[in-house]
Amino acid sequence: MRPQRPIGVFDSGIGGLTVVHALRRLLPSEALVYLGDTARVPYGTKSHDTIVRYTLQMGALLQQHDPKLIVVACNTASAHGLAALQAVSPCPVLGVIAPGAEAASQSNGPVGVIGTLATVASAAYEEAIRRHRPGAVIHSVACPLLVSLAEEGWVDDPITDAVCRRYLNELPFEVKTVVLGCTHYPILKASLSRARPGTTWIDSGEVAAEAVERLLRNGLGFRTESAPGPLRLILTDASSRLREVGERFLGESLGSLELVDL
Amino acid sequence: MRPQRPIGVFDSGIGGLTVVHALRRLLPSEALVYLGDTARVPYGTKSHDTIVRYTLQMGALLQQHDPKLIVVACNTASAHGLAALQAVSPCPVLGVIAPGAEAASQSNGPVGVIGTLATVASAAYEEAIRRHRPGAVIHSVACPLLVSLAEEGWVDDPITDAVCRRYLNELPFEVKTVVLGCTHYPILKASLSRARPGTTWIDSGEVAAEAVERLLRNGLGFRTESAPGPLRLILTDASSRLREVGERFLGESLGSLELVDL
Repeated sequence: MRPQRPIGVFDSGIGGLTVVHALRRLLPSEALVYLGDTARVPYGTKSHDTIVRYTLQMGALLQQHDPKLIVVACNTASAHGLAALQAVSPCPVLGVIAPGAEAASQSNGPVGVIGTLATVASAAYEEAIRRHRPGAVIHSVACPLLVSLAEEGWVDDPITDAVCRRYLNELPFEVKTVVLGCTHYPILKASLSRARPGTTWIDSGEVAAEAVERLLRNGLGFRTESAPGPLRLILTDASSRLREVGERFLGESLGSLELVDL
Repeated sequence: MRPQRPIGVFDSGIGGLTVVHALRRLLPSEALVYLGDTARVPYGTKSHDTIVRYTLQMGALLQQHDPKLIVVACNTASAHGLAALQAVSPCPVLGVIAPGAEAASQSNGPVGVIGTLATVASAAYEEAIRRHRPGAVIHSVACPLLVSLAEEGWVDDPITDAVCRRYLNELPFEVKTVVLGCTHYPILKASLSRARPGTTWIDSGEVAAEAVERLLRNGLGFRTESAPGPLRLILTDASSRLREVGERFLGESLGSLELVDL
């Protein structure tokens, strides 16, 4: 089971760096290979078939690094492509939706889910939450603009506040627990909290990092070299603003970037 | 010179349907084949090399329809990929930047250009405007959120007004002529006008349609069948909201859509 092998993290773009950030805090010794499909981001507006095809391609690319585990850090790819990737992957594959749904199912009362158009259309969170809590009342709202606002860096901004208010007002008043069903959203936590004070936010990336920790503990094994473990960043395209935006998500310097052609 | 052949229109997504709309009004008898790379939209955040590669691929796909002319309806693809496509295309290729720049150069005073990150980074409008008016003063502002707002359909909306104000306030007061350097922006004309009253807006799609008319008149020839000419819509992906958003851009029903795999 060679525990020295890296954890592969796949995302549609660079939003998944918030998941890497959570993994680095929780499991600082682990070696990480991050693969971001920046050439074809966003997935959240694409169709099921296209998302599945792209997820399988990215899984195959990550496999070249012999990971002990692949984390699908993108909610949209998790919602549409996870089962297909699990069916062909030689290593375990973990998505962000099951951990987020499990955490949400532990709350009482109705649950809110915010995400991309494709994630909301998939109803993947509804299904996953009801697996733990049958009959749970779930309200989902697609928030397509939030990804753009996060990438534009308007993270503490009256316009972002107004957009968050508009989307979150679609949730009934009784909803007190909301899943951040997109890895870009933790960046906008301040605006989201102002728009809906008193809400418990579930960061699907953070709970996914905890699920990774359990998988390592229960068999896959921890890397034993000293922290911090190496972090390789591989992207399908590198635009001019990528470094600035990526470092905001990762919470540390990006270091060197590798490019792969698709 | 078979003038019955279609005009091929290529765009990164469906924003270019505003150009199709202008072509249908000006040249209603023409047959049009529209190819939108909806699987990989947006191009505006991608790198030069990737945009060039995608533009060449899409040009090759359009060539299968034996067009008499290809219009690159996407400003980002025009800014980065036009020369590469012209170098290999067996038919003439027209971008939207040269016509928009020519129209802008006829104004007095400084010129504003708004567009995607990649279009603004390319400085293609600056170069093209100065070809007609050397020494012209040009101020360019990247407006990454406007594409998302247009696709979200928040077209007459206080949030869109606020975003337009913020971007347009980056232009000096003296700027009275502004090029809409992205095919999505005509949809937001009301908000843009409110944010900057008294501005002359140059719609690069509309002036591109006029340039197409001149090319047909000066040699390529007009299709003689009765109007309306057939319109084929080919996309690389079809998401659930595509029809709703596309019809807003096209100004008529989308009819049937064809999909190609990339």
